[in-house]
Amino acid sequence: MKIAVFPGSFDPITSGHEDLIRRAARMFDKLIVAIGVNSQKKYLFDLEQRIKWLEAVFADDDSIEVAHYEGLTVRFCKEVGSSFIVRGLRNSSDFEYEKQISQLNNILGEGIETMFLVSQPSLSHISSSIVREILKNNGDASALLPKQVVIT
Amino acid sequence: MKIAVFPGSFDPITSGHEDLIRRAARMFDKLIVAIGVNSQKKYLFDLEQRIKWLEAVFADDDSIEVAHYEGLTVRFCKEVGSSFIVRGLRNSSDFEYEKQISQLNNILGEGIETMFLVSQPSLSHISSSIVREILKNNGDASALLPKQVVIT
Amino acid sequence: MKIAVFPGSFDPITSGHEDLIRRAARMFDKLIVAIGVNSQKKYLFDLEQRIKWLEAVFADDDSIEVAHYEGLTVRFCKEVGSSFIVRGLRNSSDFEYEKQISQLNNILGEGIETMFLVSQPSLSHISSSIVREILKNNGDASALLPKQVVIT
Amino acid sequence: MKIAVFPGSFDPITSGHEDLIRRAARMFDKLIVAIGVNSQKKYLFDLEQRIKWLEAVFADDDSIEVAHYEGLTVRFCKEVGSSFIVRGLRNSSDFEYEKQISQLNNILGEGIETMFLVSQPSLSHISSSIVREILKNNGDASALLPKQVVIT
Amino acid sequence: MKIAVFPGSFDPITSGHEDLIRRAARMFDKLIVAIGVNSQKKYLFDLEQRIKWLEAVFADDDSIEVAHYEGLTVRFCKEVGSSFIVRGLRNSSDFEYEKQISQLNNILGEGIETMFLVSQPSLSHISSSIVREILKNNGDASALLPKQVVIT
Amino acid sequence: MKIAVFPGSFDPITSGHEDLIRRAARMFDKLIVAIGVNSQKKYLFDLEQRIKWLEAVFADDDSIEVAHYEGLTVRFCKEVGSSFIVRGLRNSSDFEYEKQISQLNNILGEGIETMFLVSQPSLSHISSSIVREILKNNGDASALLPKQVVIT
Repeated sequence: MKIAVFPGSFDPITSGHEDLIRRAARMFDKLIVAIGVNSQKKYLFDLEQRIKWLEAVFADDDSIEVAHYEGLTVRFCKEVGSSFIVRGLRNSSDFEYEKQISQLNNILGEGIETMFLVSQPSLSHISSSIVREILKNNGDASALLPKQVVIT
Repeated sequence: MKIAVFPGSFDPITSGHEDLIRRAARMFDKLIVAIGVNSQKKYLFDLEQRIKWLEAVFADDDSIEVAHYEGLTVRFCKEVGSSFIVRGLRNSSDFEYEKQISQLNNILGEGIETMFLVSQPSLSHISSSIVREILKNNGDASALLPKQVVIT
Repeated sequence: MKIAVFPGSFDPITSGHEDLIRRAARMFDKLIVAIGVNSQKKYLFDLEQRIKWLEAVFADDDSIEVAHYEGLTVRFCKEVGSSFIVRGLRNSSDFEYEKQISQLNNILGEGIETMFLVSQPSLSHISSSIVREILKNNGDASALLPKQVVIT
Repeated sequence: MKIAVFPGSFDPITSGHEDLIRRAARMFDKLIVAIGVNSQKKYLFDLEQRIKWLEAVFADDDSIEVAHYEGLTVRFCKEVGSSFIVRGLRNSSDFEYEKQISQLNNILGEGIETMFLVSQPSLSHISSSIVREILKNNGDASALLPKQVVIT
Repeated sequence: MKIAVFPGSFDPITSGHEDLIRRAARMFDKLIVAIGVNSQKKYLFDLEQRIKWLEAVFADDDSIEVAHYEGLTVRFCKEVGSSFIVRGLRNSSDFEYEKQISQLNNILGEGIETMFLVSQPSLSHISSSIVREILKNNGDASALLPKQVVIT
Repeated sequence: MKIAVFPGSFDPITSGHEDLIRRAARMFDKLIVAIGVNSQKKYLFDLEQRIKWLEAVFADDDSIEVAHYEGLTVRFCKEVGSSFIVRGLRNSSDFEYEKQISQLNNILGEGIETMFLVSQPSLSHISSSIVREILKNNGDASALLPKQVVIT
């Protein structure tokens, strides 16, 4: 069985994430969407809320599981028996950053591979940080979020 | 059965290609390495030679097949029952180009997905065009080529 | 009266061009869509055909004119009394190229300014060269073209 | 009357900003240079000082107004009756960032357009953050600042 | 005598730094590896430790000296009689950042030149920030560090 | 004696080249400006003319020599006893291209190093290809050329 991990902060999950995860799920037998928890980082939404949203968004697909972990991503991959990480790329800034991380994970993870999907054009401007920026300014971010993510 | 296509000119196949293809083959049940033939383009090596090299390099892996096609890559994917294209990314110039092609193939191919692997750091400077440049200047390109590709 | 020039090859005009030109037209009193003719370059469609398409697409907007010119773009701008060039940017590769051209036009044109619009996300993967590639492979490019551009 | 907004922190205004703003002012009937105030961000110079500098630099041009606002830029644009935002681009890192912001503003602002000017080559290395870095190290930044911005 | 300065935080020195510094040392009569101390920045390793590591790594090469400084890099260069700064480039993100800094140092330093070396492919994924990230997650970073840098 | 080679087509030499070469010459005891001749490439100016211009521009500096070569650049470097290649970088597109070439030359040249200088901001828009484009359109390129390069 081919298992892959899609790691992220998902603070909050966006329509961009949802599309990438559904597309990636078609390539593997199981895809684990995993929230990486960094105790030194501040999040806008707490872990419990972010998990609930992920579970609601992917409730319709049995091949997608939701999880969370602390520490290195590659360690989590080993624990769940996965040799593959999936990440999305929106633009060339993403690429340079993700390239370094993937090459590092390959070393640390003793062969763990990262595969990339490119964001759909119509979703390539969406990011969690832009959603947070809108919310901080009391704007309406619903057009950038899955319908299950309701922020009031 | 999950089948993917790794398309390219392979004029000639490099060590960079070989590494990407072997890594991609682990993710799918079958990987078809497919030479796209463009009748208006000039190649340094003829099709027969390029096929022979691909077959020699991957003779040890039953999950990797060699093929060639004319016309759109997505049409070939449909013929062989594949919904996935695999491509490598070396740097951000590659990324911008491949992004456009993958978004186009998604439209033309009615949902065909492209997944990307990033070149290993130690192979990221290798390309067929650089190999051809060395050969045209009577240099020795063997350090950039699989051992089965012997050019005299 | 503020007049701007949107230069290009338009071989053929795409939905990406159409969107950029309509958006730019809102900023100026008159926008001249101008086909730059380079006698040493080969085009897929002849000049007459490209002009007809441009005229058909923008027939509904009196503030948009269609024209063509040979030689330097800045010379054409002066002839038509325009101090502004408009161009679209899809990605960072476009940017580096357009930056150089705009800085050059500023010098050659004795102060002619270039302003840029960024392609809409859902159109950012469209280019004339990709349309031509599809057509050469007998594919259907109609999803990337204005409805007035019918290629059989 | 065509009104545009040039938003920024201007902490402090640089010669790069001044040049972009004067060039942009030629394209519109009125250009509002607007300091966006983010209460969670720390600035090196207080708002009053930054406004004074902007007013001094553009005292000679009646078509340029100085203002400030809190919250989303697109909300400010609506308040002042502007449908256009103007921003400068120095390099491809700027581009990727500004592209996302402009696409977002287009959604949030119900059609608000952002147009971009590219920095002149001789000013493309100047940024407020570099000016601040020099000042923090007790260096002389006057070569990067309009003559009205005197920092002692 | 041609003296160059290789400035950095070296928090900690990586194998990537070591390779760049040894390569740069061949081009000059003396190369000063200089730790820039910014009192407002937090470091993972204290200055004393970082100096010790640098001295240990380059103990075998008399043309390489270790130093540290506060304030502007160009001021330090003048103090030690150097007209040249050396920096490494790993990718295009590095490039845009370093370009700005080098153009600034040229102005502030009254002609001080920065020359760049590109990281070797097999080391281009290594950075101090990635090393620190591994260490914070209790991972083993020794593959990315010179053998003299032992972190327990 | 430290000898470096600055290779290029110089078709024709621009003010950008001149500045880079003079800056590089300060770092080495001798700098050889070398025209690489590729018999399959068409040039706008013949070799004799390009050599004359280079000799005229650098007639005032004894540490700069002019030469030409066929074949691999690293082979020429060995012939003239140089271990260093110098190249200029204008933007991130240049960077990705030059990075690949330099890594290749390091392999082919058994240790030959390439060092890079970044173009001055005010010259970063200049390239030989843009000069040729102006000349083909009967424009005046003299602002982009050393005063010794007179094209009528």
